[in-house]
Amino acid sequence: MLLYHDPRAPNPRRVRIFLAEKGVAYDTIEISIAAAAHQTVEFRKKNPIALLPVLELADGRILRESMAICRYVEELNPEPNLFGVDAWERAQVEQWNRHAELELLLPTTLVFRNTNPFWQGRIKQAPEFGAIMKEVLATRFDWFEHELAQRPYIAGQRFTVADITALCAIDFGKVSQIRIDAATHPNLAAWHERVSSRPTSKA
Amino acid sequence: MLLYHDPRAPNPRRVRIFLAEKGVAYDTIEISIAAAAHQTVEFRKKNPIALLPVLELADGRILRESMAICRYVEELNPEPNLFGVDAWERAQVEQWNRHAELELLLPTTLVFRNTNPFWQGRIKQAPEFGAIMKEVLATRFDWFEHELAQRPYIAGQRFTVADITALCAIDFGKVSQIRIDAATHPNLAAWHERVSSRPTSKA
Repeated sequence: MLLYHDPRAPNPRRVRIFLAEKGVAYDTIEISIAAAAHQTVEFRKKNPIALLPVLELADGRILRESMAICRYVEELNPEPNLFGVDAWERAQVEQWNRHAELELLLPTTLVFRNTNPFWQGRIKQAPEFGAIMKEVLATRFDWFEHELAQRPYIAGQRFTVADITALCAIDFGKVSQIRIDAATHPNLAAWHERVSSRPTSKA
Repeated sequence: MLLYHDPRAPNPRRVRIFLAEKGVAYDTIEISIAAAAHQTVEFRKKNPIALLPVLELADGRILRESMAICRYVEELNPEPNLFGVDAWERAQVEQWNRHAELELLLPTTLVFRNTNPFWQGRIKQAPEFGAIMKEVLATRFDWFEHELAQRPYIAGQRFTVADITALCAIDFGKVSQIRIDAATHPNLAAWHERVSSRPTSKA
């Protein structure tokens, strides 16, 4: 397996951590977003909408979208389980992975794209919308703080793909000066320490 | 089962069509977004972030997020299959469902929220960002037009959850004057006619 990724982007990191948790070996090709390598004609043959990551199988088949890749890896490598072991747990993990994705990672990405100098001249930016997303994120941090007072991991009593998504979201906030304040969000901070201390967080 | 929904919102419609395809019986409670019923203390006990749809099981358990609900329904009611029958088809369906969601439904929703008078005074709007999303959507329509020249359905040779997501996205564009132009996008228009003609599209 070959993973097209950028070491600095949050979605490829989700897949790298997932693969590390599974202990699956793979090769990588770096597609530097800073160098616009994702926009080349050659890479667009792998992904017409120029997004990372992309997984290429040994037979040349292409799979896009982080969660499609992770689900496929889970099917081929069931242990350790990261998507749930029965219908109800799978529903809970999916719900919380979606929450982590849509309520943490998406607004964090939208702040970055709309306010960071990195994107100036690369895409059209709307800083006003970035500011709105930053306000939304603050309410979501409050919500996850409340939730994590009740259990050690995002979706329940054990580490799942929802923790990977939330970790990559929170850490990607740094470039936009969005960080957990341990004084006001002790449970979120403790969770972050818990998941960051796993060796796979460095993947 | 009890579905909290708004008949006018695209995400509840995804679940209603899915349940109709499965032939599963359920009750509904309308939570009118226009009347701010999703913001009440009572509804926030079902969903703290005030989003629709929410599924309540007979035993009182709550499940949020359209795709968590649909996956759970698929597990309990495997036929007709809408998420894929083997690992690779499931990966393809997930990939295309994600594409339909993130490249069609999400930008369509962001245009609506940031430009429509409906939201004035309800949320902070950034019309400039809405305009950017409208431009992105035009490129995504072009991409799906190209893809649908090669197969009859979004994810392959048969109807899947990815078609439900794309249908709800396209139809929700109407309120923002985003429509398929059959002259320039004949394959997309033919696909839209194909999926709209299913009785379940009225669910």
